[in-house]
Amino acid sequence: MDTKTTILNTALKLFNEGNTQAATTNHIAAAAGISPGNLHYHFKNREAIIRRLYEKMRREFTLLPDAYPQSASDLVGVHQRVLEIQWKYRFFYRELLFLLSRDPELKTIYQQDTRAQRERIVAILRQLEHNGVMDFRYDNVLEYLADMILLIEQFWSSYMQLCDASDSPVDIEKGVLRIEETLRPYLTPSALRELADTEKG
Amino acid sequence: MDTKTTILNTALKLFNEGNTQAATTNHIAAAAGISPGNLHYHFKNREAIIRRLYEKMRREFTLLPDAYPQSASDLVGVHQRVLEIQWKYRFFYRELLFLLSRDPELKTIYQQDTRAQRERIVAILRQLEHNGVMDFRYDNVLEYLADMILLIEQFWSSYMQLCDASDSPVDIEKGVLRIEETLRPYLTPSALRELADTEKG
Repeated sequence: MDTKTTILNTALKLFNEGNTQAATTNHIAAAAGISPGNLHYHFKNREAIIRRLYEKMRREFTLLPDAYPQSASDLVGVHQRVLEIQWKYRFFYRELLFLLSRDPELKTIYQQDTRAQRERIVAILRQLEHNGVMDFRYDNVLEYLADMILLIEQFWSSYMQLCDASDSPVDIEKGVLRIEETLRPYLTPSALRELADTEKG
Repeated sequence: MDTKTTILNTALKLFNEGNTQAATTNHIAAAAGISPGNLHYHFKNREAIIRRLYEKMRREFTLLPDAYPQSASDLVGVHQRVLEIQWKYRFFYRELLFLLSRDPELKTIYQQDTRAQRERIVAILRQLEHNGVMDFRYDNVLEYLADMILLIEQFWSSYMQLCDASDSPVDIEKGVLRIEETLRPYLTPSALRELADTEKG
């Protein structure tokens, strides 16, 4: 593994286990078995490490299938993967607003990404309605569902850590279930059957 | 105003405007027009100030009506007040996980409060079902609704700040609407009418 990757992996581990402010660049260098000078040759400061980790996570998201999910079980499956990736970088969501308040560059990128993700969710939901998978029988259901999916995506792991002291990937399954339950009242009877069949299968 | 109150009000303003780590006790003392020594006479450190602000917020919550809401519009009304109080102390929710990771004492109190709040929400929902206001036609709806209400309560203001750069109390109305929309599929026809009538009135 090259030094840059070692630094990133070490920082990710320390950030996830504690918090970003407790893990100084000196701590990260020591845990990575390199000198502080060597770390600073690769990364100007901790913010640069955090930004690079965010970019890594972003790249993992873009590796997800580009095509829109065409069924309820597809949509749930995509969110399973999203929550898994977010779990890997859980320090980021745990400290989200704090990290963004300290780094205007990261904040701009993240807000752009969030807006793009919201537009994508709305487009997917419209497609699912068009396919007869969903039925938005109340006003503003589309806006409501987009907000709730984004809220769960971004804050589920933080919420789980508040409810109990556990910090385990089991919580991912529960987050995926909550997304499914949010969609359920708006699924058509055939989509509900399809989802139940997939889960049995 | 006594010095202690002045310190707390000044700290709250600075924390809300920026972040808790940027506002050192020296900054708070300067903004409050007192010496750092005077501040430290009242509060050992920044954590003590944050903990006292949390206790103040907690006291405001306990001033809410103690009786369980008996109708859909009552339940929505209570959440309007909850989100308003949280808005006043928004720095706390914005940095929630980070602050808890730095202060084990605060973490213990907050986790106890969250568990108690969850139990209260479940009890209220059961009461509403008993009153014919709600109808939990799927399995686990009670658990789902309790999680979603708590998720919105704790993370709505953070979520709003991610979606756009605005930081305005208008977002509270939207959070209340999202709670209402979460409940809607499980309200009985008569409860839906009652809610619509209250909103028209």
